[in-house]
Amino acid sequence: MSITSHDVARLAGVSQPTVSRALRGDHRVSEATRARVREAAEALGYVPSEAGRSLSTRSTRRVGVVVTDLTNPFYPHLIGPLHDELERHGYRMMLFTERSETALETERLLDRSIDGVVLTTAVIGSPLPAELNRRGLPFVFLNRETGNDGADAAVVDNEAGGRLVAEELVRLGHTDVALIGGPADTTTGRDRELGFRVGLSEAGVGLPRHRVRRGPFDYGTGYQGLLELAADGPRPTAVFCGNDVIAIGAMNAARRLGLDVPGDLTLIGFDDLPMASWETFDLTTVRHDLDGMAKAAAGLLVERLSGGAPEEPRRVTFAPELVPRGTHAAR
Amino acid sequence: MSITSHDVARLAGVSQPTVSRALRGDHRVSEATRARVREAAEALGYVPSEAGRSLSTRSTRRVGVVVTDLTNPFYPHLIGPLHDELERHGYRMMLFTERSETALETERLLDRSIDGVVLTTAVIGSPLPAELNRRGLPFVFLNRETGNDGADAAVVDNEAGGRLVAEELVRLGHTDVALIGGPADTTTGRDRELGFRVGLSEAGVGLPRHRVRRGPFDYGTGYQGLLELAADGPRPTAVFCGNDVIAIGAMNAARRLGLDVPGDLTLIGFDDLPMASWETFDLTTVRHDLDGMAKAAAGLLVERLSGGAPEEPRRVTFAPELVPRGTHAAR
Repeated sequence: MSITSHDVARLAGVSQPTVSRALRGDHRVSEATRARVREAAEALGYVPSEAGRSLSTRSTRRVGVVVTDLTNPFYPHLIGPLHDELERHGYRMMLFTERSETALETERLLDRSIDGVVLTTAVIGSPLPAELNRRGLPFVFLNRETGNDGADAAVVDNEAGGRLVAEELVRLGHTDVALIGGPADTTTGRDRELGFRVGLSEAGVGLPRHRVRRGPFDYGTGYQGLLELAADGPRPTAVFCGNDVIAIGAMNAARRLGLDVPGDLTLIGFDDLPMASWETFDLTTVRHDLDGMAKAAAGLLVERLSGGAPEEPRRVTFAPELVPRGTHAAR
Repeated sequence: MSITSHDVARLAGVSQPTVSRALRGDHRVSEATRARVREAAEALGYVPSEAGRSLSTRSTRRVGVVVTDLTNPFYPHLIGPLHDELERHGYRMMLFTERSETALETERLLDRSIDGVVLTTAVIGSPLPAELNRRGLPFVFLNRETGNDGADAAVVDNEAGGRLVAEELVRLGHTDVALIGGPADTTTGRDRELGFRVGLSEAGVGLPRHRVRRGPFDYGTGYQGLLELAADGPRPTAVFCGNDVIAIGAMNAARRLGLDVPGDLTLIGFDDLPMASWETFDLTTVRHDLDGMAKAAAGLLVERLSGGAPEEPRRVTFAPELVPRGTHAAR
């Protein structure tokens, strides 16, 4: 281990700090210089020691991303743009795929192996954000929040999205309406329901308790939810599903029950994942800019890590739009 | 930072090395002791420094997992069990989601921030394994290999799986058979095709060039592939798809073309992802033990990292089985 970054700097004709920046992909160094440094490092067989670098700079250039359920197809679509945007700023992504935000996870996030955190699956009332604040570890909310202010966030206007769906169902003449929503302790679940309920209410349409099911944002929630709604009294003519994955579960249950979508039943989702546009689903849904939201979250965090952000928390909100496809019809 | 692991050890009544092991979740420390140590650390406000620990032990207790396409629903299903099994042995997972195995990635894997690597998306002829070997960084192949021996691997018997499908199609009387396979430079793509071809060939059934399409293991490959096969001369009566995601793409294209599955066309996939059993797909496919395979890979790597493995590479092969559902029929 006699080769140091100073040797690489000499060979590449740049300063030693430039070598460090170039090798961690920092975009402040030009592509040409990064290539020259990489070639020099390669020629000398030099590999930077991360551990040594951490101690010397007190920075790890790593950002932790917390996702509780990676098998939900929603999250991989956030991870891609998040990864790319962090990399563009010279940060790497370290994925924490805990099943829930446990104490163990908090410990791990806090052991100084990362500079900051992106929270994608926060639940309302989670102690994690307060703990991160207490320890001074910067973080940003992506997609979900915990319901408190006090941190940067990149989110969809979920309430506006729920309202869009209500207005469309009202326009189509539906009055027997149901909801299969996400968990009440998530801002995405809560706010989509709230907007939906208010939109219906303003048109004089109710959403009684027996027409509401809630559960994790997954296939089983939609599948089970529709079976229950169909068994419990007169069948609704339209169901708003808290996300596309729930809607696809409901659509499969409808098929099992022999119900025609949209002839017998209108189904509307939320997110506009790629699978929503597949012929087999052709799902009417609410689109938002997944890619833009992930990039905005990365940008907010990077700015905070670099000391370039104002002290007040910032919030970037993305507007949703209805995407009419083949699963909605007039009553 | 005056609190050290020695203070925690004193309060918890254990040795200092036990504190380190307990806090990184090493399963050699009992659950009760781990809880006691966590409580003591919490009470004292102690947080271990990873960077310091890395320098002192030359071990990071981190394993890198390389996945090139996380939006393919196959990979998240590997990541979950991999994460759990690594954690059980006191390792964390660091996900590398590069678009391809670039030189940049090699550099990152080699910068000593990890102890070992799980390769899930290796392509045949990739220089990465040789580079890892040269630098002495242990690794294991999961699901795919590069076609060289010389490293631990946990894989499916892909050739046997392809043969199972051929035998089923032959039994059903199909002679106009097609393949929409994965990339020829992946062992999963290559070996499934090989087994399929040999199985057909032994029954006197050919697989001519114009009946073969290959591409990434994704939706678009299946969708585009079926459109092309249907446009190019007499339509095949059965198509073997290299994985479930390709099969689902093909099924959607069949719907666009107005073809009934399985009335006009038999479709068979590979993997048995959860979505294969959804009513909308009800896909006949080849099942293998995804969970077991991911855990086996983690086990092989952990054993090698702990110095408990023999020098020769080990190979764990999982047997596939055909899962008959609703997308196959007699000719």
